[in-house]
Amino acid sequence: MLLIIQLDKKSQKPLYLQIVDKISELIETGTLNSSDALPSTRKLAQTLDVSRQTVVQAYEELWALGYLNSHQGAYTTVRKRASIVNKKTRGEIALDYDKTIIGREKAQRINAIIQPEEEKKDSKNIIDMSAMNLDPSIFPVATFRKSLNNMLLNVSPSLLNYGHPMGYYPLREWISKRMLTHSIDVYPDEVLLTEGISQALELLIKLFTEKGDTVFLESPGYRVALSQMRVHGLRVVGIPMNSAGMNLEILEEQLHKHCSNNRQPKFIYSVPTFHNPTGITTSQSHRERLLSLCLKYSVPLIEDSFEEEIDYFNRKVLPIKSMDNYQIVFYLGTFSKVLFPGLRTGWIAGEKGVISQLTALKKISHLSSNTLTLGALYEFYHQGYFFNGLLKRSISIIHRKWKLLRAFLRKHCHSKGFPGIVPVEGIYFGLK
Amino acid sequence: MLLIIQLDKKSQKPLYLQIVDKISELIETGTLNSSDALPSTRKLAQTLDVSRQTVVQAYEELWALGYLNSHQGAYTTVRKRASIVNKKTRGEIALDYDKTIIGREKAQRINAIIQPEEEKKDSKNIIDMSAMNLDPSIFPVATFRKSLNNMLLNVSPSLLNYGHPMGYYPLREWISKRMLTHSIDVYPDEVLLTEGISQALELLIKLFTEKGDTVFLESPGYRVALSQMRVHGLRVVGIPMNSAGMNLEILEEQLHKHCSNNRQPKFIYSVPTFHNPTGITTSQSHRERLLSLCLKYSVPLIEDSFEEEIDYFNRKVLPIKSMDNYQIVFYLGTFSKVLFPGLRTGWIAGEKGVISQLTALKKISHLSSNTLTLGALYEFYHQGYFFNGLLKRSISIIHRKWKLLRAFLRKHCHSKGFPGIVPVEGIYFGLK
Repeated sequence: MLLIIQLDKKSQKPLYLQIVDKISELIETGTLNSSDALPSTRKLAQTLDVSRQTVVQAYEELWALGYLNSHQGAYTTVRKRASIVNKKTRGEIALDYDKTIIGREKAQRINAIIQPEEEKKDSKNIIDMSAMNLDPSIFPVATFRKSLNNMLLNVSPSLLNYGHPMGYYPLREWISKRMLTHSIDVYPDEVLLTEGISQALELLIKLFTEKGDTVFLESPGYRVALSQMRVHGLRVVGIPMNSAGMNLEILEEQLHKHCSNNRQPKFIYSVPTFHNPTGITTSQSHRERLLSLCLKYSVPLIEDSFEEEIDYFNRKVLPIKSMDNYQIVFYLGTFSKVLFPGLRTGWIAGEKGVISQLTALKKISHLSSNTLTLGALYEFYHQGYFFNGLLKRSISIIHRKWKLLRAFLRKHCHSKGFPGIVPVEGIYFGLK
Repeated sequence: MLLIIQLDKKSQKPLYLQIVDKISELIETGTLNSSDALPSTRKLAQTLDVSRQTVVQAYEELWALGYLNSHQGAYTTVRKRASIVNKKTRGEIALDYDKTIIGREKAQRINAIIQPEEEKKDSKNIIDMSAMNLDPSIFPVATFRKSLNNMLLNVSPSLLNYGHPMGYYPLREWISKRMLTHSIDVYPDEVLLTEGISQALELLIKLFTEKGDTVFLESPGYRVALSQMRVHGLRVVGIPMNSAGMNLEILEEQLHKHCSNNRQPKFIYSVPTFHNPTGITTSQSHRERLLSLCLKYSVPLIEDSFEEEIDYFNRKVLPIKSMDNYQIVFYLGTFSKVLFPGLRTGWIAGEKGVISQLTALKKISHLSSNTLTLGALYEFYHQGYFFNGLLKRSISIIHRKWKLLRAFLRKHCHSKGFPGIVPVEGIYFGLK
């Protein structure tokens, strides 16, 4: 076979790559067919007036690219590459994933929580009250943009490389100081930054539990946390709520029962402030008693304080973590309800050794934090963009809206068949 | 007892809150002591000349705040609140977490991967070659800043609320188009955005495996992926590498052996392009054969293509996913090596049903994506900030540095006791 190839010896492109391109084109266009024999390297080198080494290099590359069969004998043949799959004409799925890989029971658990994909509608006439979304019109976008620019203009670009999985140190330091305003006194290395409270809980579940372990949770409780525990195959024991919070008599009974049967729960998860979904904020003595029960039965307490910063009703109860003399409480905080949720920044404050273990888990599952976001957040808080002022403003707007909504519900619910609204202690409304 | 309290009846602050503040202050300062009896609500109302209801409300609040004992009889007594814990004087840890909660064996596995916290040094004289960090001086910080500003100035703030866990739709659409340049043809709803490749692998491990399951991995292989699998308690079978990539004869033997013993591996994890740590890029026929083995034994393939965009050596091998007619391949991509790693943005492209299940897992462990980052990324790519030009520039800088380093190593390694450098096929150097 005679191959007619034009080479451009003045081109910057290496000759061997020119040969590769030409021959692969001849194959792709069907001029050369599967099993056609190519000229020997010596012969092609002569024809093209290049060194034999150049042709050898080209053939090796063509082989690596799948255009030639590997050659042991005297000549080389054209190989048919696997074709590129078009999404519209591809074949049937080769596997029943649910059956073969995931397992039916687990697949069922997961399929039950799949939600249809639904892109956010951005309509000025619809107020989205699901998922505790905040009113985007109160987001401090302009001031945050200023912080982002400051950060990107002044900081070393190396900040944008992989960052330590604990999260940007100056921000952790700032948070440990900020928590002091809620009477929580911890060192920055007892603070692990996470992608929101959900990742914080995820890491704690991964560290503290194995499939089949028992954990306690308020009932009714935070729906997402409950799903998360169930997907991990945990045995979730619901402790009923009464008007004071988790029923502590039943909690103690359950603790006693489980611990005597050697089934100590791996943790108790509680939302003591603005409990989701009842809105209850527990009293100081309730908190002290809950903490003492955890100590008595040696069960860690996960205190989800997603609304700590939002002091809607001027009540200053102490976070349970602030009284945690024996480091049995893991406090989950977030700025999702203060700045904007899309920043995905929360944290865990707790015992240093456990924080190191959680960091190791975060490192292998996420390598690094989002350094862009954390750097900007630090700039935002550190430069003191009137953080307390912003917060006060947001809270007063939210409170005003809350009163409006309450008045609206009181006026209209009855005629729509809901005789009353319950309870209004917290920031939620329930219709009955 | 007579309580002397000054109320300011002209103040905006409700009277009951003024009473709360004054009494809690008297308790905090020790003027009132634990078990001291307070006047009855009727008496105090008379003394202060306020309605009895105001005092009742104040006492209830003081009770909730832990300053009063709950009162059943005629009078109310002062309660000692638990004290706020000072980090410097707190007690011993109440729990042996490793023993009681985590379990010794698991704690050992995790403690083995804890790394000391070390903040990034920002020194112009040190080039950090660990962890495949990029040279921060080539980051397109200025152009990215422009995109961020565009996004924050023009987009609706509602983008910054919780976003869909699959990730910002326009960006997924852009990525599905971008993958076409690598011959991968998938729909946007077959793409799930993740926080880098590590989270992508984490989600696949969570969905596909249970503790004790078998998975296959190249040996030597990507260290972080190996730790990740071990921490999940997986049985990791290493398939030896040879100069062509994973040894496919051994792979087939192991597949045959495991599948006949009903221990089908849950997946094969492979890095076919610039394999970490050997640098090998496998040939086209190697890829085709690997794919056909996965099909033959019904084992999903996780193709980690962290360097797909980085076409350092002008070689155009097809990603395995591009030939995946039967949807058995899960392709992991990232822009960490193109833009900057601190953005934590990667993706999984694969079978739609599995992508939905992975999304459900991401939703319960992370609720939402980082909408700030994804919005800015979309702006960056979509506005076409010379993406291909930027990429070309980065690649040429990296390539120049690579050649410089190779020359340096060749010149100096021998005298330092390293007789040679191996291999230089990829982007890594090994000293022996």
